[in-house]
Amino acid sequence: MLHVNGGEGEMSYANNSLLSRKVLSSTWLIAKEAISKFCHQSNFPTTTFTMAELGCSCGPNALLIASNLVERVEEIRKRLQKNALEYQILLNDLHGNDFNAIFRSLPSFLEELKTKIGAHDSDFGPCFFNGVPGSFYFRLFPTNSVHFFHSTYTLHWLSRVPEGIENKNKGKIFISSTSPKSVVEAYYKQFQMDFSMFLKCRAEELVIDGHMILTMLGRTSEEPWSKECTSFWEFLSLALNTMVAEGLVEEEKVDLFNIPNYMPSWKEVEAEVLEEGRFGISHLQVSKIDWDFSDDAETKYDFAKCVRSVIESLLISHFGEAIIDELFRRYKKIIVEKRSEERLQITNLTISLIKIK
Amino acid sequence: MLHVNGGEGEMSYANNSLLSRKVLSSTWLIAKEAISKFCHQSNFPTTTFTMAELGCSCGPNALLIASNLVERVEEIRKRLQKNALEYQILLNDLHGNDFNAIFRSLPSFLEELKTKIGAHDSDFGPCFFNGVPGSFYFRLFPTNSVHFFHSTYTLHWLSRVPEGIENKNKGKIFISSTSPKSVVEAYYKQFQMDFSMFLKCRAEELVIDGHMILTMLGRTSEEPWSKECTSFWEFLSLALNTMVAEGLVEEEKVDLFNIPNYMPSWKEVEAEVLEEGRFGISHLQVSKIDWDFSDDAETKYDFAKCVRSVIESLLISHFGEAIIDELFRRYKKIIVEKRSEERLQITNLTISLIKIK
Repeated sequence: MLHVNGGEGEMSYANNSLLSRKVLSSTWLIAKEAISKFCHQSNFPTTTFTMAELGCSCGPNALLIASNLVERVEEIRKRLQKNALEYQILLNDLHGNDFNAIFRSLPSFLEELKTKIGAHDSDFGPCFFNGVPGSFYFRLFPTNSVHFFHSTYTLHWLSRVPEGIENKNKGKIFISSTSPKSVVEAYYKQFQMDFSMFLKCRAEELVIDGHMILTMLGRTSEEPWSKECTSFWEFLSLALNTMVAEGLVEEEKVDLFNIPNYMPSWKEVEAEVLEEGRFGISHLQVSKIDWDFSDDAETKYDFAKCVRSVIESLLISHFGEAIIDELFRRYKKIIVEKRSEERLQITNLTISLIKIK
Repeated sequence: MLHVNGGEGEMSYANNSLLSRKVLSSTWLIAKEAISKFCHQSNFPTTTFTMAELGCSCGPNALLIASNLVERVEEIRKRLQKNALEYQILLNDLHGNDFNAIFRSLPSFLEELKTKIGAHDSDFGPCFFNGVPGSFYFRLFPTNSVHFFHSTYTLHWLSRVPEGIENKNKGKIFISSTSPKSVVEAYYKQFQMDFSMFLKCRAEELVIDGHMILTMLGRTSEEPWSKECTSFWEFLSLALNTMVAEGLVEEEKVDLFNIPNYMPSWKEVEAEVLEEGRFGISHLQVSKIDWDFSDDAETKYDFAKCVRSVIESLLISHFGEAIIDELFRRYKKIIVEKRSEERLQITNLTISLIKIK
């Protein structure tokens, strides 16, 4: 079962989630605009505002967006002179996620939030936090019950490794320029099935005029094997193959391992949204971030460690724990070499959807 | 922070919760009747049936009642030929509860439930499980959002040790026949504050005609120091005091420790319900269970271990971990001695309430 690394150690997701925090801030304007659109005078919720974070994981970002959204809705509420609202904040992730860690941080989080919006002596309503375990490729919430969905860096995760590609993608662990056509097609087909199911479920759960802001890894190229979206798994397969060459990892194990990811193009995303038919597209943003971005001009982001905090559980269940340290040592080395030759960037797609019928 | 022992070890609550399971089955008729009353033809929920288990803890009982309730509602739904319902099952406990353990058991639980109600090939709707961390002495759910509340063995837990009794209840850890009047009054006052707050919050959250079934430790006697409801803490203070006598525990530590429990009489419960004013009392049941009850005429229930699984975290935070094994060895010995002299029983109060306005 896939889950990011829990706890607060060096390799924990909590300690390596600066990338998604950076993405959150770059997409915040879109979320802010969506909130403003939703919360206009005649449409303003009467008692409860319900928002859901899909794939919240267990790091500090799980609650960051909730905090920003509540703050924004409160601003609008005060301007429109509406009564106090109750906030229902639904935090979803897979069953294996460390919900206990999030729950234990809630009391202090809520205190900070109240201070931030100056709520201690105003008419700020209660915030109800729920943990909702389960895959977002199934239904998670009652019909017509959610006003706002938000999800960052989750939808490029497929529900499973595409069927029928075992042993067909030899020496590789993801779509690669040398992968057979059938492998690429199987990946795309799985993306279509999963993303259409995701949209169908959320369309049931969202109220009319409700919004959904999704950010995922994607690509600007038409080709799914473009370096733009395959490099970081390509480098990991390079690292694995050096270990195969030295007899540290079995070749067959690598042949059988494939990462359940798909980084769609904008057109591929749009096609599924149009096919589903109940969402209007309000906004699209494509952004690129350097793997070694730096916020303070000194510390460069450790991309290899970030990848490890996300993928480690999957690698351990297939290859065992013994190879992990060495694998990521080599992975990091490869990244450093490649970075001296070319600029390494990831591409993010952010899409803002409105439920129109 | 109070929480029952997590995990699945010998001293875990999960492995010592047979008593509450026994209570659940003895109160099930009341819950069943409440469900039947609520789900009549004209009142039957149209899309979602929302139930909340308050103080669910992390043992097998957390999901048992949900399973029984869903099964019962499905029976009625089929008889009334209503459309499939969505079930929203809200599992509440304090922030420190092991929600991860419950969540991990959900996929297999859901499979069993579906098999049990023959739902695999019928029109059984989805079940949405949410973990809701927080104290039930505060608001937990949106206004008018819950159809059915259920809680077993939680409401005799006060929100805190009554104020101002430190050092007044010397040598004792709970109300005792030798406790000063001010201590007994402080306990009762805390119960009144807590239980009235509980009722107030639930009245906001429950829909009109919604039901609430509460089972708590209580007493038939008018006297809060009656042995009927104080013996098990009295025996624990006896055990502590033998350790004080031998210099294993500091006397001042015992003087400062008081258990945040109150076992109300039926009249005391009724008074708060009438004072709140929005609930009608549909049913009351008083039941007694032997401490050493036995279901199979061979294994007698280990009451001392049950008490340990519930209270250990609180004792550790006050006395440290070192004394626990010895303390419960002595506690068990005292229980065995006392049991040869008298029949030891606990008294349960079960109350079924309907929100009438």
